[in-house]
Amino acid sequence: MVFYLCTEKIKNMVEQLLAHRTIRKYKIQPVEEEFLEKILQAGCRSATTGNMQLYSIIVTTDEENKKRLAPCHFNQPMVVNAPLVLTFCADFNRFNKWCRVSEAEPGYDNFLSFVTASIDAVIVAQTVTIAAESLGLGVCYLGTTTYMASRIIDILKLPKGVVPVTTLTIGWPDEDPEQVDRLPLKGIVHKEFYADYTEGDIASMYQEKENRPENRKFAEENNKKTLAQVFTDIRYKKSDNVLFSNMLLEVLKDQGYMNQESIIE
Amino acid sequence: MVFYLCTEKIKNMVEQLLAHRTIRKYKIQPVEEEFLEKILQAGCRSATTGNMQLYSIIVTTDEENKKRLAPCHFNQPMVVNAPLVLTFCADFNRFNKWCRVSEAEPGYDNFLSFVTASIDAVIVAQTVTIAAESLGLGVCYLGTTTYMASRIIDILKLPKGVVPVTTLTIGWPDEDPEQVDRLPLKGIVHKEFYADYTEGDIASMYQEKENRPENRKFAEENNKKTLAQVFTDIRYKKSDNVLFSNMLLEVLKDQGYMNQESIIE
Repeated sequence: MVFYLCTEKIKNMVEQLLAHRTIRKYKIQPVEEEFLEKILQAGCRSATTGNMQLYSIIVTTDEENKKRLAPCHFNQPMVVNAPLVLTFCADFNRFNKWCRVSEAEPGYDNFLSFVTASIDAVIVAQTVTIAAESLGLGVCYLGTTTYMASRIIDILKLPKGVVPVTTLTIGWPDEDPEQVDRLPLKGIVHKEFYADYTEGDIASMYQEKENRPENRKFAEENNKKTLAQVFTDIRYKKSDNVLFSNMLLEVLKDQGYMNQESIIE
Repeated sequence: MVFYLCTEKIKNMVEQLLAHRTIRKYKIQPVEEEFLEKILQAGCRSATTGNMQLYSIIVTTDEENKKRLAPCHFNQPMVVNAPLVLTFCADFNRFNKWCRVSEAEPGYDNFLSFVTASIDAVIVAQTVTIAAESLGLGVCYLGTTTYMASRIIDILKLPKGVVPVTTLTIGWPDEDPEQVDRLPLKGIVHKEFYADYTEGDIASMYQEKENRPENRKFAEENNKKTLAQVFTDIRYKKSDNVLFSNMLLEVLKDQGYMNQESIIE
C-alpha cells in the first residue's frame, strides 16, 4: 500500500492540523485514483444532518473543463494548474428523488434546507482537505464558488436542488510557504457569553497582523493607508458583495430553495 | 505531555476519519483546559476566507448556561450532559470593528458575507471535531443551531454581525456505537458533470439503507410505510422547515446581513 508511506511522518494529527498552510502551486503530476477515492471516502464518513448526506462532489480533472471553470474563480491559476478540482455542492436533489420514489412528499424547497445542506457540504470539504493533507497533498479553498454559482451550475450541469458552495484545488505541493498569521485565540473564543470588543481589544488583537512586514508591504503596494482598506476598497468591496449577494439569492430561488412563503399547514 | 499519549493508537489519520462515529453519551468527567485549548487552536489554523477569520466560538461549560441552551436544541440530552458545548458563529462584527478603527468602511452587511462567514465557521467546527476525535474525545453536531438562532443569540449575548451556525457537544465517550450506513461513494461523486439520478439509480443506491434492520425498525416504530416518510412526515417536516426558514431569514436581517438592496455604487 503506497498509500500509507506518505503518512508515516505524521506522528500526531493535532500537530498536522496546527501546521496547516494553503498550497496554491502544484507539481505537474496527477493525483492517483486510489488517493482520490480514499480522501472522498473519508469525507463522506463525516457527520451529516440526520444521515441524509445532503451534498454532491463534482470531480474535475479534464483540462477543458478546468478552463471553463477558471473564469468562475476569477482565473486564479490554481484552477487550471491543479490536477484535481473538487466542487462541493449543497444537494437535496438526490434526497428529494428518494422521497418521491418512496411515497413521501419532501418539504425541502426552502432556505433552512439550503443552509442545512451547505453545512453538510462544507463539513465534507474540510474532512477531504484534512485527509488530503495527511497524505502529503496540498489544498486550496476557492471562496469564489458562491460568487459565480450560476455559471458553475451551467458548466457542471447541476440540476434544481443543487448549489455549489465551495471548491478545493488539490495536488502535490510545488511550494513551501510560511504559515500566515492568525489572531490570538482569546480574540476568537468567548467563555459562556460573547464579550464584545472594545477599540483597545481590536487594536491589540490586530497589532501583530498589521505590523507583519508582508502585510505592511501589501498595504503600500496597494497605495492604502491601512491594511483594512485593502480589504474594504480592493479585495472585498461592498459593491461586489452586494452584486454577488443578489446573484446568489437569485440562484437559491432558481435552484428551488426559496419557497418558504408558500406554506399552507 | 499527557496530551500525546491518547493519540498513539491513531496510526493513520485517514483511518481515523474513516472510523468516524457520532458520540452522544459522555462520561461525567470534564475535558481538561489544555485539551480544549489545543483543539480550538487546531480549529483556528484552518483555511479562512482571505485570512479574515470570520467566526467566533462560544464555549459553554456552566451548568446553568447549558440548561438555558438545551431548549434551543429541542432538549437533546447531549446539551446538558456534555462537559463542553461549543457554538460556532459566523462573525463579521470583529472584522467590521477592525475596519472602522482603521479608517476603512466595511461593506459586509449582505447575504454573501453571511454565507462566507458561515463557511468559515463550519470549516473551523469540522477541524475542531477531527482534532477532538484524534484525542479520543467524542463529538456530536447539533443541526438545530440554525432553527432557534434568535434564542441562541439572546442567551449567548451575540451582537449584530454574529449568527450561530452550528454547535458541537464534546466529551469523553460513554458509548461505543456501530458506524451508521452511508450511501455508496458513486452515488455522491460525479465525474466532470453532474449525472442526474434515474429512479433505478436511487433505488439501488438507497437499497442497503432501507434494508438495514435498524432502519426498518425505525419506520415501523413510527408507523410509516417507508423510511423516507419518517423524514418527510416526522423528523424534517415541511411546516417546520418553512417556519425555521422564515425565522432564520429574520435573524439574518436583524443581525445586519440582508442590506444588499441598498447599494449605491
